[in-house]
Amino acid sequence: MALNVSQKLINEHLVSGKLTPGEEIGLSIDQTLTQDATGTMVMLELEAMEIERAKTEASAQYVDHNVIQEDSKNPDDHLFLESAAKRFGLHFSRPGNGVSHPVHMQRLAKPGRTLLGSDSHTCANGCMGMLAMGAGGIDVAMAIAGEPFYVKMPQIWGIKLTGKLPDWVSAKDIILELLRRHDVKGGVGKVMEYYGPGLEELSAMDRHVIANMGAELGATASVFPSDQEIKRFLKSQGREDDWYEITADKDASYDINEEVNLSELVPLIAKPSSPGNVVAIDEVAGEDIYQSYVGSSANPGYRDFAVAAEIVKGQQIASGVSFDINPTSRQMLTDLVENGHIASLLSSGARLHQAGCNGCIGMGQAPATGRNSLRTTPRNFPGRSGTREDSVFLCSPEVAAASALKGKITDPRTLDMKYPDVKDPDKPTVDFRLLEEPLPLEEAKKTELHKGPNIASLPDMEPLPDEIEVPVLLKVGDNFSTDEILAGGARVLPYRSNLPEISKFAFEILDEDYYNRSLSLKEKSGHAIVGGSNYGQGSSREHAALAPRYLGLRVVFVKDFARIHWQNLVNFGILPLTFANEDDYNQFDPGDIIVMKNLRENIKKGNELKASLKDKNKEIKMLHALSDRQVEIMLTGGLINWVKDKQIRNA
Amino acid sequence: MALNVSQKLINEHLVSGKLTPGEEIGLSIDQTLTQDATGTMVMLELEAMEIERAKTEASAQYVDHNVIQEDSKNPDDHLFLESAAKRFGLHFSRPGNGVSHPVHMQRLAKPGRTLLGSDSHTCANGCMGMLAMGAGGIDVAMAIAGEPFYVKMPQIWGIKLTGKLPDWVSAKDIILELLRRHDVKGGVGKVMEYYGPGLEELSAMDRHVIANMGAELGATASVFPSDQEIKRFLKSQGREDDWYEITADKDASYDINEEVNLSELVPLIAKPSSPGNVVAIDEVAGEDIYQSYVGSSANPGYRDFAVAAEIVKGQQIASGVSFDINPTSRQMLTDLVENGHIASLLSSGARLHQAGCNGCIGMGQAPATGRNSLRTTPRNFPGRSGTREDSVFLCSPEVAAASALKGKITDPRTLDMKYPDVKDPDKPTVDFRLLEEPLPLEEAKKTELHKGPNIASLPDMEPLPDEIEVPVLLKVGDNFSTDEILAGGARVLPYRSNLPEISKFAFEILDEDYYNRSLSLKEKSGHAIVGGSNYGQGSSREHAALAPRYLGLRVVFVKDFARIHWQNLVNFGILPLTFANEDDYNQFDPGDIIVMKNLRENIKKGNELKASLKDKNKEIKMLHALSDRQVEIMLTGGLINWVKDKQIRNA
Repeated sequence: MALNVSQKLINEHLVSGKLTPGEEIGLSIDQTLTQDATGTMVMLELEAMEIERAKTEASAQYVDHNVIQEDSKNPDDHLFLESAAKRFGLHFSRPGNGVSHPVHMQRLAKPGRTLLGSDSHTCANGCMGMLAMGAGGIDVAMAIAGEPFYVKMPQIWGIKLTGKLPDWVSAKDIILELLRRHDVKGGVGKVMEYYGPGLEELSAMDRHVIANMGAELGATASVFPSDQEIKRFLKSQGREDDWYEITADKDASYDINEEVNLSELVPLIAKPSSPGNVVAIDEVAGEDIYQSYVGSSANPGYRDFAVAAEIVKGQQIASGVSFDINPTSRQMLTDLVENGHIASLLSSGARLHQAGCNGCIGMGQAPATGRNSLRTTPRNFPGRSGTREDSVFLCSPEVAAASALKGKITDPRTLDMKYPDVKDPDKPTVDFRLLEEPLPLEEAKKTELHKGPNIASLPDMEPLPDEIEVPVLLKVGDNFSTDEILAGGARVLPYRSNLPEISKFAFEILDEDYYNRSLSLKEKSGHAIVGGSNYGQGSSREHAALAPRYLGLRVVFVKDFARIHWQNLVNFGILPLTFANEDDYNQFDPGDIIVMKNLRENIKKGNELKASLKDKNKEIKMLHALSDRQVEIMLTGGLINWVKDKQIRNA
Repeated sequence: MALNVSQKLINEHLVSGKLTPGEEIGLSIDQTLTQDATGTMVMLELEAMEIERAKTEASAQYVDHNVIQEDSKNPDDHLFLESAAKRFGLHFSRPGNGVSHPVHMQRLAKPGRTLLGSDSHTCANGCMGMLAMGAGGIDVAMAIAGEPFYVKMPQIWGIKLTGKLPDWVSAKDIILELLRRHDVKGGVGKVMEYYGPGLEELSAMDRHVIANMGAELGATASVFPSDQEIKRFLKSQGREDDWYEITADKDASYDINEEVNLSELVPLIAKPSSPGNVVAIDEVAGEDIYQSYVGSSANPGYRDFAVAAEIVKGQQIASGVSFDINPTSRQMLTDLVENGHIASLLSSGARLHQAGCNGCIGMGQAPATGRNSLRTTPRNFPGRSGTREDSVFLCSPEVAAASALKGKITDPRTLDMKYPDVKDPDKPTVDFRLLEEPLPLEEAKKTELHKGPNIASLPDMEPLPDEIEVPVLLKVGDNFSTDEILAGGARVLPYRSNLPEISKFAFEILDEDYYNRSLSLKEKSGHAIVGGSNYGQGSSREHAALAPRYLGLRVVFVKDFARIHWQNLVNFGILPLTFANEDDYNQFDPGDIIVMKNLRENIKKGNELKASLKDKNKEIKMLHALSDRQVEIMLTGGLINWVKDKQIRNA
């Protein structure tokens, strides 16, 4: 049977399930990527799992998110991550080396491999002929431990690129065009696979731009073939041996078909405040800007900076514009320096920042209130810039540079100049030290984890007891979100590596006394929570399950769950149950004592469980939706115990 | 009479007083410098004074402190400062252009002039044959309004430099040697004037290093002659015409005499946590380091970065070291890029940050808890790095670079290499756009001040009433500090440009209800505060007077005042009184009603005032220490009203 690239990649890594869209498949994972914002918890999970050493072909820990060090928390995290990388046999990329995705591409990515990363833009490395997917931290911890990654088999969406990009139109405009057509949910449950003659003119880094923002359509992955251009790229990085060809078979077909004629594209721009809010630049040209921003994993390439530099060379940016340059790797910055582009940018009036994610994830470079900011970054969600009342547009480096010169949103085609002819340097700097090599096993085993005062090991999690007798500590209504369970933001997030501390914020928006009450019951009995429909909607953050679990949450009774939070509850050993009869929601009151007996036997037997309301003399029928694998996880007390047991069994 | 340089500078600017050390003199001010952390309040004061246009020869507003933009507050401040610079006829330096002191030196400093700046390191420009002094914000606002600056006539401390610096020893070691000899109070009440044959080998920027850290000895100013080297420097900056010679007369003498033989110096280092804690580097060599930091106004020169670059060129810094490079101006960064030094630094593993103060003032680059950080910055006070338990050493760029290579505190003389021969570039980049020119008057008058949501104009301040009847709202003990009156720190400081908001924090450490109670009395009567000895010690922050004044504080009764807070109370129209008999402190209780009559007449008559305790039927004798000028200021309601009235009278 003729296969497309996605099918080949999936086939070669399939450990369970069938290639029927919508069915769960298990995939073996070759490589992982963690960044610092999510990585500290992954490393604590590896510690709790008692992992001896990463079982992947290659796993890398990057420090790129929290590189502004206003107090000791971030640098202490960096030291912890460095020690953990050494301990568990991971590659390590120091703060200032650059953004995970382009650095991974330069130093580690290999055609034909799977890559799982605890960052939603992990899909960027799909440009290298890889199946690269973003996932939650615990999923990546599992992958590092050698476990498969489970995902619903996606549809394969074949996107044929034809024609040739006109001058002043570049890779960013291709993915903006797809967002214009399909909006931010258009890729959900799909792999976006690119092919066709239009690929010929797209460099590996151009493809990175497109693959990266597959995340903005909600795609499971973005996939490109590994062709001669990938060979050229790997050769330029001193890694020619890592190349092999992987392209779609001649008669391969796709579940969905689409074509983009590159010749017809114009410069596009996503208006505030959604990446899907895309229009042709004419519609907004002439609006004053406060900021123009070049960088991020959505325009990480040498050419992206060089083209901006060539546009502003010898000229001055408009008075009052903050022209922020955010290099994506130290290696690339060195090339840009040596080829004169940084000098061009600085002379024009640019602000040059250290290599890293920076303003793309709201770490610095926030715009002034209500002022327009043009960015080559992937996202413009409201407030993501750090400024509550922000007004962020997404665009190509060409649009960003032209607009910086004019002080207004500017169609670069209206500049009185020839389109700069910019290519990657023939012999780019190759800096293998961007990624420190894993330590040899014996040395690694001797490495102590370095824990600053704000980093705490995960506590032991008990297995599921056979009988529980727990009070209902909270009863909440419909659509209760993970933000209400455990808020994000600058007040809470600094404690992301300190479960005892971050737990103090659990449910505090609803009930400031939850923490104290739950803590007093923790050793004695634990507690239960009752909720309505769509419980746990919103952010996927795992702490919203981990913190209540730490405080003794044993079981949640709701009408129905938001999908990801349900998964997180299972992962951390909290029993998620739904009412067989939704009206039973009304039977529960705060303070009721719930008794469940023979739990360990009963959850294996079927999906029905009985819960007694002790003082009301009532019995309520509850349902669980756990697979056999998940029942096993629940019995051991969550994924961490489950993996730990497995390590011990296999030792 | 033969004069030294300091005497010449003072003579030429003297508007009142005599050159007797310790007596108050008034000096006319030619130039001012404000940075963004202190500048927003200065600009609000200019607005409140209804200033038409700066009356100085040149005034410049820099944005260098708060250039990390994590939310809208800093960028909104930047826009406000830009609009205020335009409105009041100031030069403006955008964020990313660099640190005020070196940029001012490159673009505006002129031999023979006085410079007053709202930054303690303003003394740095003494390297240019100027009398350059740091002062409070309101002092600088006054200077911009054309008023003299009042200061106690300092002693002139002649420091003769002889000999020649050995290899691996540089300007930083000269000022560290003076700190070693005299510690952090050694310069109080003194101008440090440098002269002698040792000057010949010190470039203008080397002299900047030395002049800058006069602040660390508490000196009133640092003064260097304007000689051929200053001519060379000004010529290299395209400003040869701004040069004129100013050197000490042949037989000039000094109040204090000292000699430093440069030939005898060795690399020095200030240990944690005081700039005066200086030892020879041998004493600490070999200690592990976490961070090595090059930059700040205490080592701002091209050569400071170039020598570090030459030391690490072609080598890798030690694993685990954060090697932070903080360029001091965009102009200098361009030269460092073009001459290959930035490439050397990056290739060695450095993190390159935007031009600005950055970690020097705790804005980023905080070290990990308890880990050693080597910095070329001027200060290592505990916690200034942003990390509570920090361990910061101060040193030369030579020591910083050598230590980065080895991962340990390293005497650079032990490196197996020749001392790099680094000089300023013959034709440095000259970027006049680092400083935007003031707008012409007519255009300036039309400029609206741009106020983001966090910037509020200063409210009107009433003149001193003739009779007050106010309750004692608080009674405090001895040594009550300005930190207790109004805290600093990240929770409070973001409201530095918003008096109504920042006032909510006044006295809250002592009494959370002070804000509400004072506000309820504000229109009705105002209130009084009673204190012990050394009231208002600590930080010089003006908000500690402004905020209580905004809340209706009329009069303070204490045993005695800390000097600067007393000055601030006068400046903002709060009557500062001391008990004629200290025991009367015991007569006052919170809630007592104090009545004072014929106040306006009586404070003019002499330094005695009577206060009745209404319900106790007691009369207490109080003293004021106001000069005639200060009585006038007090009567109008503070400096702002006083200048405003004067503007109107002179219009």
